[in-house]
Amino acid sequence: MLNKTFLHDLQQAIGGATLLSHPAELESYAWDNTGVRFRPDAVVLADCAEQVAATLRFCQAAGIAVTPRGAGTGNVGGALPLHGGVVLSLQRMNRIVEINRQDRIAVVEAGVVNADLQQALKPFGLYWPPDPTSARSCTLGGNLAMCAAGANAVRFGVTRDWVLGVEAVLADGRLLRSGGRTSKNVVGYDLTRLLIGSEGTLAVITATTLALAPLPEARRSLRALFASVAAAADAVTQVMAEGEPPAVVEFLDQATLALLRRSGSLTLPDQAQAMLLLEVCGSQATVDQLATELEQRLKSGSALAVERAANDQEANKIWQARAVLSPILKKYAPKRINEDVVVPVSQLAPLIAGLEQLSHESGVPIVSFGHAGNGNLHVNLLVNPADAAVMAQVPMLLQRLFGLVLSLHGSLSGEHGVGLQKRDFVAQELDPVALTLQQQIKALFDPAGILNPGKALPPRLP
Amino acid sequence: MLNKTFLHDLQQAIGGATLLSHPAELESYAWDNTGVRFRPDAVVLADCAEQVAATLRFCQAAGIAVTPRGAGTGNVGGALPLHGGVVLSLQRMNRIVEINRQDRIAVVEAGVVNADLQQALKPFGLYWPPDPTSARSCTLGGNLAMCAAGANAVRFGVTRDWVLGVEAVLADGRLLRSGGRTSKNVVGYDLTRLLIGSEGTLAVITATTLALAPLPEARRSLRALFASVAAAADAVTQVMAEGEPPAVVEFLDQATLALLRRSGSLTLPDQAQAMLLLEVCGSQATVDQLATELEQRLKSGSALAVERAANDQEANKIWQARAVLSPILKKYAPKRINEDVVVPVSQLAPLIAGLEQLSHESGVPIVSFGHAGNGNLHVNLLVNPADAAVMAQVPMLLQRLFGLVLSLHGSLSGEHGVGLQKRDFVAQELDPVALTLQQQIKALFDPAGILNPGKALPPRLP
Repeated sequence: MLNKTFLHDLQQAIGGATLLSHPAELESYAWDNTGVRFRPDAVVLADCAEQVAATLRFCQAAGIAVTPRGAGTGNVGGALPLHGGVVLSLQRMNRIVEINRQDRIAVVEAGVVNADLQQALKPFGLYWPPDPTSARSCTLGGNLAMCAAGANAVRFGVTRDWVLGVEAVLADGRLLRSGGRTSKNVVGYDLTRLLIGSEGTLAVITATTLALAPLPEARRSLRALFASVAAAADAVTQVMAEGEPPAVVEFLDQATLALLRRSGSLTLPDQAQAMLLLEVCGSQATVDQLATELEQRLKSGSALAVERAANDQEANKIWQARAVLSPILKKYAPKRINEDVVVPVSQLAPLIAGLEQLSHESGVPIVSFGHAGNGNLHVNLLVNPADAAVMAQVPMLLQRLFGLVLSLHGSLSGEHGVGLQKRDFVAQELDPVALTLQQQIKALFDPAGILNPGKALPPRLP
Repeated sequence: MLNKTFLHDLQQAIGGATLLSHPAELESYAWDNTGVRFRPDAVVLADCAEQVAATLRFCQAAGIAVTPRGAGTGNVGGALPLHGGVVLSLQRMNRIVEINRQDRIAVVEAGVVNADLQQALKPFGLYWPPDPTSARSCTLGGNLAMCAAGANAVRFGVTRDWVLGVEAVLADGRLLRSGGRTSKNVVGYDLTRLLIGSEGTLAVITATTLALAPLPEARRSLRALFASVAAAADAVTQVMAEGEPPAVVEFLDQATLALLRRSGSLTLPDQAQAMLLLEVCGSQATVDQLATELEQRLKSGSALAVERAANDQEANKIWQARAVLSPILKKYAPKRINEDVVVPVSQLAPLIAGLEQLSHESGVPIVSFGHAGNGNLHVNLLVNPADAAVMAQVPMLLQRLFGLVLSLHGSLSGEHGVGLQKRDFVAQELDPVALTLQQQIKALFDPAGILNPGKALPPRLP
């Protein structure tokens, strides 16, 4: 608990920024998408980088933890104040400073919502490729902090590929500018990408210069049904092994289809036990050709059926199955454990086989779907928190899941990040020398350890 | 000078690696593409990461500088032993360890030549997009160390975009593994990209896992002539402002065309004072459409003429003008100063106007050409080293050139790097806070300062 004198001094220090300290207000900043809650002692709503700097200077001097926060849409607790202290919200810093068509860049503050930027870019015929499922509410600062991705990444890459520069505030309040406005730039070490994905543990990103891509003129959607998850996994591998990759390759497993059937969201032939949803994009003149090539490739494989949307309405219907998944899962299994593993595309089939075995042996239903073109699956363990015997199994289940992923040369997180949820598993993935260097870099950037403590990396052994 | 006892101990330490110490042999490792020479005291030819580690362990203990070296094709002295000591050659580590078609990755040792990898990838229908002009001889380790790019970067990005993981040896001999085999991976800080572009000052990269792209089925080449460099710069901006960018957009200025005419390499109408060479790529089914769209866009602008190659022979003829430039420049101006500046595409016209003014005022011919689609120009100052009055002007000319580039929000180097040539200008571009952090990171990775000393960053003030 922070006392009244402290709050008074903090308000003095941060000048015009808004300070929240009423319990009801603090409650609004205690949550994210994990379902876990940690209440902060105070919340600062910053309007500008100077206020961010003032907050950090004051908190470093006082030894108070600062947890940067965008929209709180994260899945790993990255924005939760594990040790209390101050939550520093960037949501008010939501100015789109510049959109430059010729240079294909946008300069934005960290609190701009991903979808708001996309909307503003449309008239310029441009967009920013990273598209997390939470795009309608997540902020760009959060996207950078977690190195967010999404379905587009199959062809267009992830956040780190679409950032030219950042402005950030260090733990001691100094303003850092890194990178610039050009796609080529090899002067100095790449601090820009060191901050991207560092989950607010090295600095607080306040603004960024983003690289933009031309908005594809046209898109075509396809749906392929398979008699087994193994056949669908093989089809993904085949599609990714030749030619231009599709823009999107989403996979839904047997258990996911069962859930969709049960909820009445989708009618499918009984033999269909796995599904791929795919999209190609290009110019009006080329997109049908691309769709035809992909359709033929899928049909020459083991698909039961391949359907191609004839118009936008049919395309929307195809994608509806993917869009309803999260709400349905929340309804049927509010306390599910949602993991975000990734393996090389060639290892999708063994991953899926391993998940089936794990589910079979433990009796815990596992629903897996996601960005298969990158080998990135969202694996949902449908545990019932009221069932003590099942809950006692969870640590073993996670350990077996992560062990499986690492044995297939994968990673514990493709796009959700580490946060507090996976912190204690990081050392199983990272090379010990790399981990030590990362902990030393953390100590260099944040010697007092006030920036988002307890996230991203296990603590350094003394 | 290293004495005989030292050389004997070094040979003992490095085991099976080859140690060169004969003056004639050392001379072969004293040069790169800059024309500047620094002779090492000894050269180690390593066969494996263990020998690299042994060399570094020994040299750190002895306080001897180690300069990692690939093929010596760099343009900024990055591979030159500024302070003598040991040159550590990675050229013998030239194994292509794995090519994986389904995962679109290649695992290679640092000494593999760029073109050799491309050749090995062809049967798989894949390639690695970064294509420095020196691709036929430069090594992939050098490409990573400098974050090399090339003409392809307009559409396909630079080295940092096509690397999934690295294996490197730290100054104290510890082996570091970073990244992995998947395109999505957000566990831990991005040490992979911290090493890319660090010019061998943080660690010695010994192997890497590269992301691969599908080899385009077809390419089409176009040539556009303009009455002025300003008109050509405007055309670049226009081409880059809408739709899919071409795969390659190369620019040749007035002075470059004059040089080509003088050498008899090219016949052009008198009015042509600037030229663009462009390439589009795609599938057989789509490439002609892409070429037609680009041709129409260029024709609707101020081009004097737009020609499209009808076949491979005509395409080769178009690109011949670009290919002969370096040899011609070497012949006519062996002591030219070759800079590698980059500005946002919208600032190409003011950059080129500024270069003309600089040439006019100083009397020094300036020949500029390069990767205009990225705003990256190779600016050649044709100084005559015998002319003392001109040579006295050089520092002022460079200062004006760099001042111009930075005033246009550009960078001092788009792809050649800093090395020793631009080290003393780096502080003009980098934010002082960023520079301080970079120097601290250097001290963290290499506390004894043995790794490529005097490169990339100005020394840290005590």
